[in-house]
Amino acid sequence: MNAVCLLSGGLDSATCLGVARCEGFDCYALSFDYGQRHRVELEAADRVARHFAARKHLTARIDLRAFGGSALTADIDVPKHDSVDDLGGGIPITYVPARNTIFLSYAMAWAEVLQASDIFIGVNAIDYSGYPDCRPEFIAAFETMANLATKTGVEGTTHLRIHTPLAKLDKAGIVKLGAEVGVDFSQTHSCYDPDPDGRSCGNCDSCLLRKKGFREAGVADPLIYVIP
Amino acid sequence: MNAVCLLSGGLDSATCLGVARCEGFDCYALSFDYGQRHRVELEAADRVARHFAARKHLTARIDLRAFGGSALTADIDVPKHDSVDDLGGGIPITYVPARNTIFLSYAMAWAEVLQASDIFIGVNAIDYSGYPDCRPEFIAAFETMANLATKTGVEGTTHLRIHTPLAKLDKAGIVKLGAEVGVDFSQTHSCYDPDPDGRSCGNCDSCLLRKKGFREAGVADPLIYVIP
Repeated sequence: MNAVCLLSGGLDSATCLGVARCEGFDCYALSFDYGQRHRVELEAADRVARHFAARKHLTARIDLRAFGGSALTADIDVPKHDSVDDLGGGIPITYVPARNTIFLSYAMAWAEVLQASDIFIGVNAIDYSGYPDCRPEFIAAFETMANLATKTGVEGTTHLRIHTPLAKLDKAGIVKLGAEVGVDFSQTHSCYDPDPDGRSCGNCDSCLLRKKGFREAGVADPLIYVIP
Repeated sequence: MNAVCLLSGGLDSATCLGVARCEGFDCYALSFDYGQRHRVELEAADRVARHFAARKHLTARIDLRAFGGSALTADIDVPKHDSVDDLGGGIPITYVPARNTIFLSYAMAWAEVLQASDIFIGVNAIDYSGYPDCRPEFIAAFETMANLATKTGVEGTTHLRIHTPLAKLDKAGIVKLGAEVGVDFSQTHSCYDPDPDGRSCGNCDSCLLRKKGFREAGVADPLIYVIP
Protein backbone atom coordinates (compact mmCIF):
# COMPACT_ATOMS: atom_id res chain seq x y z
CA MET A 1 0.00 0.00 0.00
CA ASN A 2 1.27 3.41 -0.98
CA ALA A 3 1.25 6.38 1.38
CA VAL A 4 2.34 9.97 0.90
CA CYS A 5 4.31 11.14 3.93
CA LEU A 6 4.96 14.82 4.55
CA LEU A 7 8.59 15.11 5.59
CA SER A 8 10.23 18.31 6.79
CA GLY A 9 13.31 16.59 8.13
CA GLY A 10 12.43 17.47 11.72
CA LEU A 11 11.96 15.13 14.63
CA ASP A 12 8.17 14.96 14.24
CA SER A 13 7.96 14.18 10.54
CA ALA A 14 10.84 11.69 10.77
CA THR A 15 8.99 9.85 13.53
CA CYS A 16 5.78 9.99 11.49
CA LEU A 17 7.54 8.46 8.46
CA GLY A 18 9.00 5.79 10.73
CA VAL A 19 5.49 4.92 11.95
CA ALA A 20 4.20 4.67 8.37
CA ARG A 21 7.05 2.30 7.50
CA CYS A 22 6.41 0.18 10.60
CA GLU A 23 2.76 -0.05 9.58
CA GLY A 24 3.92 -1.55 6.29
CA PHE A 25 3.28 1.33 3.88
CA ASP A 26 5.38 1.99 0.80
CA CYS A 27 6.24 5.58 1.50
CA TYR A 28 6.44 8.49 -0.93
CA ALA A 29 8.09 11.30 1.02
CA LEU A 30 7.14 14.87 0.16
CA SER A 31 9.13 17.91 1.23
CA PHE A 32 8.76 21.59 0.39
CA ASP A 33 11.25 24.24 -0.49
CA TYR A 34 9.12 27.22 0.45
CA GLY A 35 11.79 29.83 1.02
CA GLN A 36 12.17 28.86 4.64
CA ARG A 37 15.17 30.24 6.50
CA HIS A 38 16.11 26.84 7.83
CA ARG A 39 16.90 25.25 4.47
CA VAL A 40 19.30 22.88 6.13
CA GLU A 41 16.16 20.93 7.05
CA LEU A 42 15.80 19.90 3.39
CA GLU A 43 19.12 18.09 3.63
CA ALA A 44 17.85 16.42 6.79
CA ALA A 45 14.72 15.33 4.89
CA ASP A 46 16.92 13.69 2.24
CA ARG A 47 18.82 11.74 4.87
CA VAL A 48 15.67 10.62 6.68
CA ALA A 49 13.92 9.59 3.45
CA ARG A 50 16.91 7.41 2.51
CA HIS A 51 17.12 5.98 6.03
CA PHE A 52 13.51 4.81 5.84
CA ALA A 53 13.86 3.61 2.22
CA ALA A 54 11.17 5.89 0.82
CA ARG A 55 10.11 4.73 -2.66
CA LYS A 56 10.53 8.27 -3.87
CA HIS A 57 11.33 11.61 -2.28
CA LEU A 58 10.07 14.76 -3.99
CA THR A 59 10.85 18.29 -2.91
CA ALA A 60 8.27 20.67 -4.34
CA ARG A 61 9.32 24.28 -4.72
CA ILE A 62 6.51 26.51 -3.60
CA ASP A 63 6.47 30.23 -3.27
CA LEU A 64 5.07 31.33 0.07
CA ARG A 65 7.38 34.33 0.38
CA ALA A 66 5.31 36.28 -2.12
CA PHE A 67 2.61 36.57 0.52
CA GLY A 68 4.86 37.40 3.50
CA GLY A 69 3.46 37.34 7.02
CA SER A 70 5.69 34.86 8.86
CA ALA A 71 9.08 34.93 10.56
CA LEU A 72 9.93 31.68 8.78
CA THR A 73 9.54 33.16 5.31
CA ALA A 74 9.56 36.96 5.60
CA ASP A 75 12.23 39.30 6.84
CA ILE A 76 11.15 39.15 10.49
CA ASP A 77 13.51 37.99 13.24
CA VAL A 78 12.91 34.53 14.65
CA PRO A 79 12.11 35.09 18.35
CA LYS A 80 14.59 33.74 20.90
CA HIS A 81 13.91 32.77 24.51
CA ASP A 82 15.89 31.93 27.63
CA SER A 83 13.83 28.85 28.38
CA VAL A 84 10.87 26.86 27.21
CA ASP A 85 8.75 28.50 29.93
CA ASP A 86 9.04 31.84 28.11
CA LEU A 87 7.38 30.62 24.91
CA GLY A 88 4.06 32.21 25.87
CA GLY A 89 0.64 31.51 24.44
CA GLY A 90 -1.17 32.46 21.30
CA ILE A 91 -0.18 31.86 17.71
CA PRO A 92 3.58 32.29 17.23
CA ILE A 93 5.08 34.61 14.61
CA THR A 94 6.73 31.53 13.08
CA TYR A 95 3.26 30.42 11.94
CA VAL A 96 3.18 30.34 8.13
CA PRO A 97 -0.27 31.25 6.78
CA ALA A 98 -2.09 28.23 5.40
CA ARG A 99 1.09 26.17 5.36
CA ASN A 100 -0.36 22.82 6.34
CA THR A 101 -3.36 23.38 4.07
CA ILE A 102 -1.01 23.92 1.14
CA PHE A 103 1.23 20.98 2.13
CA LEU A 104 -1.73 18.63 2.49
CA SER A 105 -3.16 19.84 -0.83
CA TYR A 106 0.05 18.84 -2.60
CA ALA A 107 0.08 15.53 -0.75
CA MET A 108 -3.48 14.99 -1.95
CA ALA A 109 -2.45 15.70 -5.55
CA TRP A 110 0.38 13.19 -5.39
CA ALA A 111 -1.78 10.62 -3.59
CA GLU A 112 -4.34 10.90 -6.36
CA VAL A 113 -1.73 10.29 -9.06
CA LEU A 114 -0.22 7.37 -7.10
CA GLN A 115 -3.69 6.00 -6.33
CA ALA A 116 -2.70 6.10 -2.67
CA SER A 117 -5.43 6.52 -0.12
CA ASP A 118 -3.20 7.36 2.84
CA ILE A 119 -1.40 10.54 3.82
CA PHE A 120 0.79 10.87 6.92
CA ILE A 121 1.46 14.18 8.67
CA GLY A 122 3.33 14.65 11.93
CA VAL A 123 1.12 17.23 13.64
CA ASN A 124 1.02 16.76 17.38
CA ALA A 125 -0.30 17.95 20.72
CA ILE A 126 2.41 20.61 21.07
CA ASP A 127 1.68 22.10 17.67
CA TYR A 128 -2.00 22.18 18.45
CA SER A 129 -1.47 24.72 21.16
CA GLY A 130 -0.10 27.32 18.79
CA TYR A 131 -0.84 26.57 15.15
CA PRO A 132 -4.46 26.56 14.01
CA ASP A 133 -3.74 24.25 11.08
CA CYS A 134 -2.42 21.48 13.31
CA ARG A 135 -5.56 20.89 15.35
CA PRO A 136 -7.57 17.66 15.03
CA GLU A 137 -10.69 19.54 13.91
CA PHE A 138 -8.70 21.08 11.05
CA ILE A 139 -7.32 17.70 9.99
CA ALA A 140 -10.82 16.17 10.08
CA ALA A 141 -12.23 19.04 7.98
CA PHE A 142 -9.38 18.68 5.50
CA GLU A 143 -10.08 14.96 5.14
CA THR A 144 -13.76 15.64 4.45
CA MET A 145 -12.88 18.27 1.86
CA ALA A 146 -10.25 16.04 0.24
CA ASN A 147 -12.74 13.26 -0.32
CA LEU A 148 -14.99 15.69 -2.18
CA ALA A 149 -12.11 17.12 -4.22
CA THR A 150 -10.74 14.05 -5.93
CA LYS A 151 -11.67 11.75 -8.76
CA THR A 152 -11.53 8.68 -6.53
CA GLY A 153 -13.54 10.37 -3.81
CA VAL A 154 -16.27 11.26 -6.30
CA GLU A 155 -16.20 7.83 -7.89
CA GLY A 156 -16.34 6.29 -4.41
CA THR A 157 -13.40 3.99 -5.18
CA THR A 158 -11.12 5.32 -2.45
CA HIS A 159 -11.52 7.05 0.85
CA LEU A 160 -8.53 9.27 1.48
CA ARG A 161 -7.37 9.12 5.06
CA ILE A 162 -5.08 11.61 6.82
CA HIS A 163 -3.03 9.78 9.44
CA THR A 164 -1.73 11.77 12.42
CA PRO A 165 0.09 9.17 14.51
CA LEU A 166 1.62 11.84 16.77
CA ALA A 167 -1.69 13.57 17.43
CA LYS A 168 -1.79 13.01 21.17
CA LEU A 169 1.92 13.10 21.90
CA ASP A 170 4.05 15.79 23.46
CA LYS A 171 7.73 16.13 22.47
CA ALA A 172 8.90 13.54 25.02
CA GLY A 173 6.33 11.08 23.69
CA ILE A 174 7.51 11.74 20.15
CA VAL A 175 11.14 11.12 21.11
CA LYS A 176 10.17 7.80 22.71
CA LEU A 177 8.07 6.77 19.70
CA GLY A 178 10.85 7.90 17.34
CA ALA A 179 13.32 5.66 19.17
CA GLU A 180 10.87 2.73 18.90
CA VAL A 181 10.33 3.07 15.16
CA GLY A 182 14.03 3.45 14.46
CA VAL A 183 14.54 7.17 13.79
CA ASP A 184 18.21 8.13 13.64
CA PHE A 185 17.93 11.38 15.59
CA SER A 186 21.32 12.60 14.34
CA GLN A 187 19.76 12.87 10.86
CA THR A 188 16.95 15.18 11.95
CA HIS A 189 16.93 18.94 12.18
CA SER A 190 14.62 21.12 14.23
CA CYS A 191 16.16 24.61 14.55
CA TYR A 192 14.37 27.60 12.99
CA ASP A 193 17.56 29.65 12.90
CA PRO A 194 20.70 27.54 12.42
CA ASP A 195 24.14 29.17 12.20
CA PRO A 196 26.07 29.24 8.88
CA ASP A 197 27.53 25.80 9.64
CA GLY A 198 24.04 24.35 10.09
CA ARG A 199 24.34 24.03 13.87
CA SER A 200 21.13 24.47 15.86
CA CYS A 201 20.85 27.75 17.77
CA GLY A 202 19.51 26.18 20.94
CA ASN A 203 17.16 28.99 21.92
CA CYS A 204 14.45 29.32 19.28
CA ASP A 205 11.03 27.84 20.06
CA SER A 206 11.80 24.70 18.15
CA CYS A 207 15.20 24.03 19.77
CA LEU A 208 13.82 24.66 23.24
CA LEU A 209 10.93 22.26 22.73
CA ARG A 210 13.21 19.61 21.25
CA LYS A 211 15.73 19.82 24.09
CA LYS A 212 12.93 19.59 26.67
CA GLY A 213 11.48 16.56 24.85
CA PHE A 214 14.76 14.64 24.87
CA ARG A 215 15.39 15.61 28.51
CA GLU A 216 11.97 14.42 29.62
CA ALA A 217 12.18 11.24 27.55
CA GLY A 218 15.57 10.44 29.08
CA VAL A 219 17.08 10.04 25.63
CA ALA A 220 20.35 11.66 24.53
CA ASP A 221 19.97 14.23 21.74
CA PRO A 222 22.88 13.74 19.31
CA LEU A 223 22.61 17.31 17.94
CA ILE A 224 25.15 19.98 18.85
CA TYR A 225 23.66 23.30 19.93
CA VAL A 226 25.30 26.75 19.85
CA ILE A 227 23.59 27.41 23.20
CA PRO A 228 23.39 23.97 24.88
CA MET B 1 -12.93 45.52 1.60
CA ASN B 2 -10.18 43.32 0.23
CA ALA B 3 -10.85 40.16 -1.75
CA VAL B 4 -8.49 37.62 -3.27
CA CYS B 5 -9.66 36.71 -6.77
CA LEU B 6 -8.34 33.63 -8.55
CA LEU B 7 -7.60 34.67 -12.11
CA SER B 8 -6.56 32.30 -14.87
CA GLY B 9 -7.15 34.78 -17.66
CA GLY B 10 -10.04 32.78 -19.05
CA LEU B 11 -13.60 33.88 -19.62
CA ASP B 12 -14.86 32.50 -16.31
CA SER B 13 -12.27 33.99 -13.99
CA ALA B 14 -12.36 37.34 -15.83
CA THR B 15 -16.13 37.47 -15.32
CA CYS B 16 -15.69 36.47 -11.68
CA LEU B 17 -13.18 39.28 -11.13
CA GLY B 18 -15.58 41.70 -12.83
CA VAL B 19 -18.35 40.66 -10.43
CA ALA B 20 -16.05 41.19 -7.42
CA ARG B 21 -15.22 44.70 -8.68
CA CYS B 22 -18.89 45.50 -9.27
CA GLU B 23 -19.63 44.39 -5.71
CA GLY B 24 -17.13 47.00 -4.53
CA PHE B 25 -14.21 44.81 -3.47
CA ASP B 26 -10.59 45.89 -3.69
CA CYS B 27 -9.28 42.96 -5.65
CA TYR B 28 -6.00 41.11 -5.26
CA ALA B 29 -5.72 38.90 -8.31
CA LEU B 30 -3.87 35.59 -7.99
CA SER B 31 -2.66 33.53 -10.93
CA PHE B 32 -0.56 30.39 -11.09
CA ASP B 33 2.26 29.35 -13.31
CA TYR B 34 1.93 25.60 -12.83
CA GLY B 35 3.67 24.37 -15.93
CA GLN B 36 0.44 24.47 -17.92
CA ARG B 37 0.72 24.11 -21.66
CA HIS B 38 -1.43 27.12 -22.29
CA ARG B 39 0.93 29.68 -20.77
CA VAL B 40 -0.47 32.37 -23.00
CA GLU B 41 -3.30 32.49 -20.45
CA LEU B 42 -0.90 34.11 -17.98
CA GLU B 43 -0.54 37.06 -20.35
CA ALA B 44 -4.32 37.19 -20.57
CA ALA B 45 -4.50 37.26 -16.77
CA ASP B 46 -2.17 40.28 -16.73
CA ARG B 47 -4.38 42.16 -19.19
CA VAL B 48 -7.57 41.33 -17.30
CA ALA B 49 -6.08 42.28 -13.91
CA ARG B 50 -5.05 45.68 -15.29
CA HIS B 51 -8.43 46.15 -16.97
CA PHE B 52 -10.22 45.69 -13.65
CA ALA B 53 -7.64 47.75 -11.72
CA ALA B 54 -6.63 44.96 -9.37
CA ARG B 55 -4.73 46.38 -6.38
CA LYS B 56 -2.08 43.77 -6.96
CA HIS B 57 -1.62 40.82 -9.28
CA LEU B 58 0.61 37.96 -8.14
CA THR B 59 1.55 34.95 -10.23
CA ALA B 60 2.69 32.13 -7.96
CA ARG B 61 4.95 29.53 -9.52
CA ILE B 62 3.87 26.12 -8.39
CA ASP B 63 5.17 22.78 -9.43
CA LEU B 64 2.38 20.40 -10.34
CA ARG B 65 4.34 18.70 -13.12
CA ALA B 66 6.36 16.74 -10.58
CA PHE B 67 3.25 14.68 -9.86
CA GLY B 68 2.10 14.17 -13.48
CA GLY B 69 -1.34 12.79 -14.23
CA SER B 70 -3.00 15.46 -16.40
CA ALA B 71 -3.00 16.42 -20.07
CA LEU B 72 -2.60 20.05 -18.99
CA THR B 73 0.69 19.44 -17.21
CA ALA B 74 2.08 16.09 -18.34
CA ASP B 75 3.13 14.90 -21.75
CA ILE B 76 -0.31 13.67 -22.76
CA ASP B 77 -2.11 15.01 -25.84
CA VAL B 78 -4.95 17.42 -25.25
CA PRO B 79 -8.03 15.70 -26.68
CA LYS B 80 -9.71 17.29 -29.71
CA HIS B 81 -13.32 16.97 -30.83
CA ASP B 82 -15.42 17.77 -33.86
CA SER B 83 -18.17 19.38 -31.85
CA VAL B 84 -19.26 20.14 -28.33
CA ASP B 85 -21.59 17.14 -28.43
CA ASP B 86 -18.59 14.81 -28.56
CA LEU B 87 -17.17 15.93 -25.21
CA GLY B 88 -18.60 12.91 -23.43
CA GLY B 89 -19.11 12.41 -19.72
CA GLY B 90 -16.87 11.57 -16.80
CA ILE B 91 -13.82 13.38 -15.57
CA PRO B 92 -11.75 14.72 -18.48
CA ILE B 93 -8.03 14.01 -18.88
CA THR B 94 -7.44 17.76 -18.63
CA TYR B 95 -8.38 17.50 -14.94
CA VAL B 96 -5.35 18.47 -12.85
CA PRO B 97 -5.23 16.54 -9.55
CA ALA B 98 -6.12 18.73 -6.58
CA ARG B 99 -5.70 21.91 -8.64
CA ASN B 100 -8.50 23.95 -7.14
CA THR B 101 -7.63 22.74 -3.66
CA ILE B 102 -4.09 24.00 -4.15
CA PHE B 103 -5.25 27.27 -5.75
CA LEU B 104 -7.72 27.95 -2.95
CA SER B 105 -5.09 27.10 -0.34
CA TYR B 106 -2.80 29.78 -1.76
CA ALA B 107 -5.69 32.23 -1.94
CA MET B 108 -6.39 31.47 1.71
CA ALA B 109 -2.75 32.17 2.62
CA TRP B 110 -2.82 35.53 0.86
CA ALA B 111 -6.21 36.40 2.30
CA GLU B 112 -4.91 35.76 5.77
CA VAL B 113 -1.91 38.04 5.24
CA LEU B 114 -4.14 40.75 3.69
CA GLN B 115 -6.74 40.26 6.44
CA ALA B 116 -9.24 39.70 3.67
CA SER B 117 -12.25 37.55 4.41
CA ASP B 118 -13.39 37.05 0.83
CA ILE B 119 -12.11 34.80 -1.94
CA PHE B 120 -13.61 34.68 -5.43
CA ILE B 121 -13.35 31.68 -7.72
CA GLY B 122 -15.04 31.28 -11.09
CA VAL B 123 -16.22 27.67 -10.83
CA ASN B 124 -19.50 27.10 -12.62
CA ALA B 125 -22.22 24.68 -13.62
CA ILE B 126 -20.29 23.46 -16.68
CA ASP B 127 -17.18 22.69 -14.65
CA TYR B 128 -19.26 20.84 -12.09
CA SER B 129 -20.15 18.20 -14.60
CA GLY B 130 -16.57 17.10 -15.08
CA TYR B 131 -14.24 18.34 -12.36
CA PRO B 132 -14.77 17.06 -8.82
CA ASP B 133 -13.10 20.10 -7.29
CA CYS B 134 -15.55 22.53 -8.85
CA ARG B 135 -18.72 21.20 -7.25
CA PRO B 136 -20.64 23.23 -4.65
CA GLU B 137 -20.19 20.54 -2.00
CA PHE B 138 -16.43 20.73 -2.47
CA ILE B 139 -16.45 24.54 -2.18
CA ALA B 140 -18.56 24.35 1.00
CA ALA B 141 -16.21 21.77 2.53
CA PHE B 142 -13.21 23.92 1.63
CA GLU B 143 -14.78 26.95 3.32
CA THR B 144 -15.41 24.94 6.50
CA MET B 145 -11.84 23.66 6.49
CA ALA B 146 -10.42 27.13 5.79
CA ASN B 147 -12.16 28.62 8.78
CA LEU B 148 -10.51 26.01 10.99
CA ALA B 149 -7.10 26.51 9.40
CA THR B 150 -6.48 30.18 9.95
CA LYS B 151 -5.56 32.49 12.78
CA THR B 152 -8.61 34.65 12.25
CA GLY B 153 -10.89 31.65 12.01
CA VAL B 154 -9.58 30.35 15.34
CA GLU B 155 -9.73 33.76 16.97
CA GLY B 156 -13.25 34.17 15.61
CA THR B 157 -12.45 37.60 14.18
CA THR B 158 -13.17 36.74 10.56
CA HIS B 159 -15.26 34.25 8.70
CA LEU B 160 -13.63 33.44 5.41
CA ARG B 161 -16.12 33.20 2.59
CA ILE B 162 -15.58 31.57 -0.80
CA HIS B 163 -17.66 33.40 -3.42
CA THR B 164 -18.70 31.50 -6.53
CA PRO B 165 -20.78 34.01 -8.48
CA LEU B 166 -20.86 31.79 -11.57
CA ALA B 167 -21.98 28.70 -9.66
CA LYS B 168 -25.29 28.25 -11.41
CA LEU B 169 -24.36 29.57 -14.83
CA ASP B 170 -23.63 27.77 -18.06
CA LYS B 171 -21.23 29.27 -20.61
CA ALA B 172 -23.92 31.40 -22.26
CA GLY B 173 -24.93 32.78 -18.86
CA ILE B 174 -21.29 33.58 -18.10
CA VAL B 175 -20.89 35.44 -21.41
CA LYS B 176 -23.98 37.53 -20.62
CA LEU B 177 -22.81 38.27 -17.07
CA GLY B 178 -19.32 39.04 -18.36
CA ALA B 179 -20.78 41.60 -20.77
CA GLU B 180 -22.77 43.18 -17.92
CA VAL B 181 -19.79 43.56 -15.58
CA GLY B 182 -17.58 44.98 -18.31
CA VAL B 183 -15.28 42.12 -19.30
CA ASP B 184 -13.26 42.90 -22.43
CA PHE B 185 -13.57 39.48 -24.05
CA SER B 186 -10.69 40.15 -26.42
CA GLN B 187 -8.36 40.10 -23.40
CA THR B 188 -9.40 36.65 -22.27
CA HIS B 189 -7.99 33.31 -23.31
CA SER B 190 -9.66 29.91 -23.07
CA CYS B 191 -7.81 27.46 -25.34
CA TYR B 192 -5.98 24.48 -23.80
CA ASP B 193 -3.77 24.09 -26.85
CA PRO B 194 -3.01 27.38 -28.63
CA ASP B 195 -0.77 27.48 -31.71
CA PRO B 196 2.72 29.06 -31.52
CA ASP B 197 1.22 32.49 -32.27
CA GLY B 198 -1.14 32.15 -29.33
CA ARG B 199 -4.24 31.62 -31.49
CA SER B 200 -6.95 29.39 -30.06
CA CYS B 201 -7.22 25.95 -31.66
CA GLY B 202 -11.01 25.96 -31.85
CA ASN B 203 -11.54 22.27 -31.16
CA CYS B 204 -10.32 21.48 -27.65
CA ASP B 205 -12.96 21.11 -24.92
CA SER B 206 -12.45 24.64 -23.73
CA CYS B 207 -12.68 26.27 -27.20
CA LEU B 208 -15.79 24.29 -28.08
CA LEU B 209 -17.55 25.27 -24.85
CA ARG B 210 -16.55 28.91 -25.28
CA LYS B 211 -17.78 29.10 -28.87
CA LYS B 212 -21.08 27.47 -27.91
CA GLY B 213 -21.49 29.95 -25.02
CA PHE B 214 -21.00 33.01 -27.21
CA ARG B 215 -23.27 31.57 -29.89
CA GLU B 216 -26.07 30.85 -27.42
CA ALA B 217 -25.66 34.22 -25.70
CA GLY B 218 -25.88 35.98 -29.05
CA VAL B 219 -22.64 37.83 -28.35
CA ALA B 220 -19.76 38.08 -30.81
CA ASP B 221 -16.54 36.37 -29.66
CA PRO B 222 -13.62 38.62 -30.61
CA LEU B 223 -11.08 35.75 -30.56
CA ILE B 224 -9.67 34.29 -33.78
CA TYR B 225 -9.73 30.50 -33.94
CA VAL B 226 -7.56 28.23 -36.11
CA ILE B 227 -10.68 26.09 -36.65
CA PRO B 228 -13.58 28.58 -36.52
